[in-house]
Amino acid sequence: MDAPRPIRADAARNSERILRAAREVYAEAGGEASLEEIARRADVGIATLYRHYPSKDALALAALRQLVDEHISPVMRQALEDNDPRRGLASVMEAVVCTLAREGCFIAATRIESSAVPVLAASMLDPLGLLGLRAQQAGLLRADLVPADLFRVVVMLLSLLVTMNFDSNGWRRYIALLLDGLSPVGASLLPPPVPLQCLPVS
Amino acid sequence: MDAPRPIRADAARNSERILRAAREVYAEAGGEASLEEIARRADVGIATLYRHYPSKDALALAALRQLVDEHISPVMRQALEDNDPRRGLASVMEAVVCTLAREGCFIAATRIESSAVPVLAASMLDPLGLLGLRAQQAGLLRADLVPADLFRVVVMLLSLLVTMNFDSNGWRRYIALLLDGLSPVGASLLPPPVPLQCLPVS
Repeated sequence: MDAPRPIRADAARNSERILRAAREVYAEAGGEASLEEIARRADVGIATLYRHYPSKDALALAALRQLVDEHISPVMRQALEDNDPRRGLASVMEAVVCTLAREGCFIAATRIESSAVPVLAASMLDPLGLLGLRAQQAGLLRADLVPADLFRVVVMLLSLLVTMNFDSNGWRRYIALLLDGLSPVGASLLPPPVPLQCLPVS
Repeated sequence: MDAPRPIRADAARNSERILRAAREVYAEAGGEASLEEIARRADVGIATLYRHYPSKDALALAALRQLVDEHISPVMRQALEDNDPRRGLASVMEAVVCTLAREGCFIAATRIESSAVPVLAASMLDPLGLLGLRAQQAGLLRADLVPADLFRVVVMLLSLLVTMNFDSNGWRRYIALLLDGLSPVGASLLPPPVPLQCLPVS
């Protein structure tokens, strides 16, 4: 195979710079952030920005994917290597909530809260299912859980960010509470799971 | 005291009709719903609508308050009279999620997901705290919970609606799972609670 052509590498670099600038500018300026300012910060022309991301929503969702790749995917890979699968599961929950809390202003400014769910599902559902299976095999997780349950636990944790100071570590309390609910000790009979059906990404 | 003047009664009736029309029109037309159509459906002039609700957000939040008064407050009053406080708590959770699932299109269309949280907190926090206290006194709820925890459980349940078909009863599984987490059986030590701090209602 040929080496990647420089023009491709340039495009990838531009794209990465634009996303990083978008996260910064949204965090600072809130919902009023302009695409012009983002292009300026990324040191690209506005036409280049539009060529990569034709709408504000497309830009925000791509920036979210960058966030996941940088801060959540590595923790999921580590968790899969952890000897204690329950600790691995907790570390993934913590990483998602920490990351999205830190970037809370970006998320709130772009109003992509609901569209964020399918993006997260795409990258998290399989690793969470695998982690859950291991924890079940070790008897550390109730046997009646399916992968969608673990993903929904993440969604529930994220929903708490609007109820607390972004800088507090208040969500840790709810990770512990949810892990108690996920434990085999004192587990009651659950109604059946329904398929994960995320709202379409706009 | 004087009897209410007819003009006041008229204004209250108009206001109620406008809110009901708003819920209908948003549910049918989605985010593109126009204030003109809402005024037409409520059989009031557009000037009257603006006098009552100067912005789309103000209208949506008032419609949400109407929803709470009609469908959630009565269940909370009943739950407080239930001999089994844990069942009372479960019925409140169910009522909130059911109501907001049924009106999911209205909520999604108005994009007030985050602003909905303070509105719900205003009417739910105290009754939930009282229900929780009774359940704790009966030994049915872990002793380390504070009222904000119970309200956050409601917020978590609502966050699941975007992950499932609105018409499914899929959230019942998570009410059961969360109640297991809230049970004194197998309760682990929790990190301390942080104050409930809702984003300001716009």
